[in-house]
Amino acid sequence: MKKVAVVMGSASDLSVVQKAVDSLGNLGVPFEVRVLSAHRTPAEAREFAERAAENGFGVLIAAAGKAAHLAGALAASTILPVIGIPICSPSVGGLDALLSTVQMPSGIPVATVGIDGAVNAALLACEILAVSEPDLARRLLDKRREDSEAVLEKDREVSAQFTRKNEGSR
Amino acid sequence: MKKVAVVMGSASDLSVVQKAVDSLGNLGVPFEVRVLSAHRTPAEAREFAERAAENGFGVLIAAAGKAAHLAGALAASTILPVIGIPICSPSVGGLDALLSTVQMPSGIPVATVGIDGAVNAALLACEILAVSEPDLARRLLDKRREDSEAVLEKDREVSAQFTRKNEGSR
Amino acid sequence: MKKVAVVMGSASDLSVVQKAVDSLGNLGVPFEVRVLSAHRTPAEAREFAERAAENGFGVLIAAAGKAAHLAGALAASTILPVIGIPICSPSVGGLDALLSTVQMPSGIPVATVGIDGAVNAALLACEILAVSEPDLARRLLDKRREDSEAVLEKDREVSAQFTRKNEGSR
Amino acid sequence: MKKVAVVMGSASDLSVVQKAVDSLGNLGVPFEVRVLSAHRTPAEAREFAERAAENGFGVLIAAAGKAAHLAGALAASTILPVIGIPICSPSVGGLDALLSTVQMPSGIPVATVGIDGAVNAALLACEILAVSEPDLARRLLDKRREDSEAVLEKDREVSAQFTRKNEGSR
Amino acid sequence: MKKVAVVMGSASDLSVVQKAVDSLGNLGVPFEVRVLSAHRTPAEAREFAERAAENGFGVLIAAAGKAAHLAGALAASTILPVIGIPICSPSVGGLDALLSTVQMPSGIPVATVGIDGAVNAALLACEILAVSEPDLARRLLDKRREDSEAVLEKDREVSAQFTRKNEGSR
Amino acid sequence: MKKVAVVMGSASDLSVVQKAVDSLGNLGVPFEVRVLSAHRTPAEAREFAERAAENGFGVLIAAAGKAAHLAGALAASTILPVIGIPICSPSVGGLDALLSTVQMPSGIPVATVGIDGAVNAALLACEILAVSEPDLARRLLDKRREDSEAVLEKDREVSAQFTRKNEGSR
Amino acid sequence: MKKVAVVMGSASDLSVVQKAVDSLGNLGVPFEVRVLSAHRTPAEAREFAERAAENGFGVLIAAAGKAAHLAGALAASTILPVIGIPICSPSVGGLDALLSTVQMPSGIPVATVGIDGAVNAALLACEILAVSEPDLARRLLDKRREDSEAVLEKDREVSAQFTRKNEGSR
Amino acid sequence: MKKVAVVMGSASDLSVVQKAVDSLGNLGVPFEVRVLSAHRTPAEAREFAERAAENGFGVLIAAAGKAAHLAGALAASTILPVIGIPICSPSVGGLDALLSTVQMPSGIPVATVGIDGAVNAALLACEILAVSEPDLARRLLDKRREDSEAVLEKDREVSAQFTRKNEGSR
Repeated sequence: MKKVAVVMGSASDLSVVQKAVDSLGNLGVPFEVRVLSAHRTPAEAREFAERAAENGFGVLIAAAGKAAHLAGALAASTILPVIGIPICSPSVGGLDALLSTVQMPSGIPVATVGIDGAVNAALLACEILAVSEPDLARRLLDKRREDSEAVLEKDREVSAQFTRKNEGSR
Repeated sequence: MKKVAVVMGSASDLSVVQKAVDSLGNLGVPFEVRVLSAHRTPAEAREFAERAAENGFGVLIAAAGKAAHLAGALAASTILPVIGIPICSPSVGGLDALLSTVQMPSGIPVATVGIDGAVNAALLACEILAVSEPDLARRLLDKRREDSEAVLEKDREVSAQFTRKNEGSR
Repeated sequence: MKKVAVVMGSASDLSVVQKAVDSLGNLGVPFEVRVLSAHRTPAEAREFAERAAENGFGVLIAAAGKAAHLAGALAASTILPVIGIPICSPSVGGLDALLSTVQMPSGIPVATVGIDGAVNAALLACEILAVSEPDLARRLLDKRREDSEAVLEKDREVSAQFTRKNEGSR
Repeated sequence: MKKVAVVMGSASDLSVVQKAVDSLGNLGVPFEVRVLSAHRTPAEAREFAERAAENGFGVLIAAAGKAAHLAGALAASTILPVIGIPICSPSVGGLDALLSTVQMPSGIPVATVGIDGAVNAALLACEILAVSEPDLARRLLDKRREDSEAVLEKDREVSAQFTRKNEGSR
Repeated sequence: MKKVAVVMGSASDLSVVQKAVDSLGNLGVPFEVRVLSAHRTPAEAREFAERAAENGFGVLIAAAGKAAHLAGALAASTILPVIGIPICSPSVGGLDALLSTVQMPSGIPVATVGIDGAVNAALLACEILAVSEPDLARRLLDKRREDSEAVLEKDREVSAQFTRKNEGSR
Repeated sequence: MKKVAVVMGSASDLSVVQKAVDSLGNLGVPFEVRVLSAHRTPAEAREFAERAAENGFGVLIAAAGKAAHLAGALAASTILPVIGIPICSPSVGGLDALLSTVQMPSGIPVATVGIDGAVNAALLACEILAVSEPDLARRLLDKRREDSEAVLEKDREVSAQFTRKNEGSR
Repeated sequence: MKKVAVVMGSASDLSVVQKAVDSLGNLGVPFEVRVLSAHRTPAEAREFAERAAENGFGVLIAAAGKAAHLAGALAASTILPVIGIPICSPSVGGLDALLSTVQMPSGIPVATVGIDGAVNAALLACEILAVSEPDLARRLLDKRREDSEAVLEKDREVSAQFTRKNEGSR
Repeated sequence: MKKVAVVMGSASDLSVVQKAVDSLGNLGVPFEVRVLSAHRTPAEAREFAERAAENGFGVLIAAAGKAAHLAGALAASTILPVIGIPICSPSVGGLDALLSTVQMPSGIPVATVGIDGAVNAALLACEILAVSEPDLARRLLDKRREDSEAVLEKDREVSAQFTRKNEGSR
């Protein structure tokens, strides 16, 4: 199976990005994790993106905050799908990173997920690979079923708890 | 090759969506175009998503405005990658559609492109299919080269025009 | 009297939703509490809404955060009034949930209350039922009078406290 | 059947409000239309709300722009459900009216619909009355079916049009 | 001298409003403090504003959060200048209260100060009274001079501290 | 009676400011109109504010767009009440001018009215002067009554028009 | 004198950028105009920035819209001062471009001017060069004086016009 | 070498501004630190700016929050480049300071850096001085190399850490 690259603009983004890595691991998808900055290491970032396909990557995930250019910078140098995770920062709550990531000019798309949406970035990467990997598709369907079952279980708990209360209060 | 579905929440979104269709056509990717509403035809929308994989689709594109739930509603019923196009509307300029599309809960990703970003939605769909379609990958690389060449051509024009002016004014 | 359904998209919304439940209990309105996700359990959410009227519900309350589709998803499958509570989340302060809940397309209304406005959601549900339940209307009027009296009491306290200070300082 | 009041803060809001009136008319719901300002005629606005129930109204709809206080001002003087329509204005695109209408303090709910959402305000008023009016409920269900059928008809048209193109281009 | 009324929509606003009261006290301006809600005690709020002039008030200050209607509601019932303090609340950071206070319809102005700007509300009230109270004008000028002197004092401190460091580091 | 100064940051703001001038004229309040820029003529702006009181002014109105510093700059050099009109500009709809005008630091208040709120700025200036000018207070009360009567007249028209329609449609 | 580079991300930005070019021309500062895209021609953009200093440039101006990465991309490859002009686009009014340009990570500054602020970008470039070019500094001072004189002239016109009206109306 | 002035509107901004001072110190650039308020000490602020050039300053840095007028006020009285640091404040997260600083009227530019972007303000000041100071240019290039090397070092660490984990988990 092709690998997923999980790239962050700064090692300080690791606490958010970790959840993407965990999700990929749980679904058995091979990955590499990198720290590459669109601004502090532009040459390395570009070279990484240019060679990503030949190095066995199928999807790139890029996490960055503020004027989040990393996903767009990688996307400019590869035709592999690039997923952007806008990282929340204190001042304007991630709106800066969201707009910097999603509002790409025509020609160079970035598949943007929600602010700090690391789990969804990993799942989207898996969905992309699963288009041609039936086994991974099955694992994704299983995960969906488990997630769904977890909600239904919570529903039974919460629903029962309040039914008792509601009856008790009459 | 797997097909791309281009779904819009209302036929009034067609003027924006048309650009996605044109881009898919130019890149030789098979597609179908549908009008399905998460709110007015929820059963049909859900059924479409549930059967999309078995009906030969590889990627779904969903365009909707305001409280844009279409992409999320489709994503809830398939593990195919779903790309969301937030449609701009007069009152809050597409910020409503952007946030409604991108801020998905953990477990159900939507690959969001920019507001009215129909061309990028189509290109992203192609990049996703191209992960396992080397021919399409080549066509995407060719398109990148053409886009790049078009900018360089504009650069020569504009640069020359102002060089003459600049020299003339001295 | 018809019942009120209090539905939340995730059990983590319970701390906010609890206030709606308490308010309904205080006003003697029967209710049920459910955890149903527009994205993780779309079939169950839809079925719940489709059968809500025949199951004795008169109003549905739906609480969800981020790309808050739950209220809209329920509203798409019932003509019972659906009240949406946008849940505040860290990154953009509930603006995402507010816009995702309130900006519904023409044809499928959601009666939206303020961000984290669980008490008001419950009161609105009661006001709706009270249109044909004179007893409940009386209880709502009593509550209004009590709320008003509480403000007037606070007014007397605060006003007296500062009058003394003001006089003392001259 | 109880009447619906359609109140606007200024006669200049009539072009938006007209759609609410038309929708009520189409669904056979009796209504009255008023121009009352929370700021320029506060006494009349308050008196109208205080007597609305005894004057045969079941629901109030209030449309206002900018610092849109009308819905809240009416809601402060009645326990009938009050629906607020935030009117879009040039400078900040209706965000001011939306926040002024929806962010009500605990105790006094306003059922807010989308910016300029006059049709949905009327439908919500009908849904509220329909809780105890089975005939109106049936008419609402019929309208839902017609809306749904209109989308499906559009779907067939658009889908067929692009199928021909798609086939023609191969 | 005419009195200043300091009105808050809820006793929970007192921690912010206290600074306005202190400032008025320091400048020797008589005041009264009230808790009156535009929504929970609309009749009392209106009556207070209607009689404010004859009761010896010259300016009203109104503090409220969220859909902050208090200042506007008072302004609708008096031609005394009404100053609005938008109170910050967690979800959207006071933007709701700011827009609800400042975006008043033509005919009924509210003199709005910054979010949580209680000190400035008090100073503005004093400036308004000082138009016809030369003694108060003098006290305001004195306060300005003191404020200015405090900044200059800080400037000397900070400037000296860094001059030493700067020299030390060479 | 003291004069009102109507100052604009650029002659291009005149179309908005004109309404303030007209309102002052209608209420018989003497005024002067000036073009002074906080940035392009800072010395003149400051000198104007410093001498405003001794030159017979009682209130200053300042209109400016974008990073609207004019009101704040004048307020820094006078203790006369300064009213700020944030002017709407294309890019961010006047939110920049609103925040630049209203969010003043503690010590230097600006009485801010709504975006492009020139009429309200004039009325607020009159309300401030009217604190010590009973004749002007009476004229303001008369204007309020006329405004109120105009709404009630509109109410009768609109209400009658729809009553006929409503009856006709049955 | 060192040259100023005026770079735009797309030839469609030329209508805004033209004003920067005109301002540079008027102040006698040599310049070159280029079309280089951070995303469509990343290699050329980077190479241009890397060689800008040795090619005789002293300052770079970069104009781009939406997820405006151009200024940041150039800044990443040079230590020359880079000035960013965020270009206004329809959907979110230039807020996307502003945040994408100004919120740069620590280490790589971009000197950001206002949305569509092409004239100010040119003036800032001149101010930067003028730090070591006394002749240019003098021309900038002259321009300031002319701008100031133009405001004062407008002030005399407007002030006189309204004085006549004001007197005439008494 | 010319000096850099680091000016803050209030001593409470010192914790943010300190990082600018440290960065200047590290790069061996002479500086002075001042507390000057556009509103509380307008005369001193203006005089400082007017004499800054003759007093040996080459660049001014101004930090202020809320309606942040300091940078613009200094820029109005000098043609030296003025760099603005918008300071984050609780209510609207620095968006007020950002817009008040960056949206300057045509003719008076402010080189705005990100919210709380003190390090970048210092680096930008150095880049400006370095246009005519080759030694400082070299130090800036060295710093860039060190920053870049630090990212690459982090990259090696993080990348190795996850490679081990990834391999271990297979």
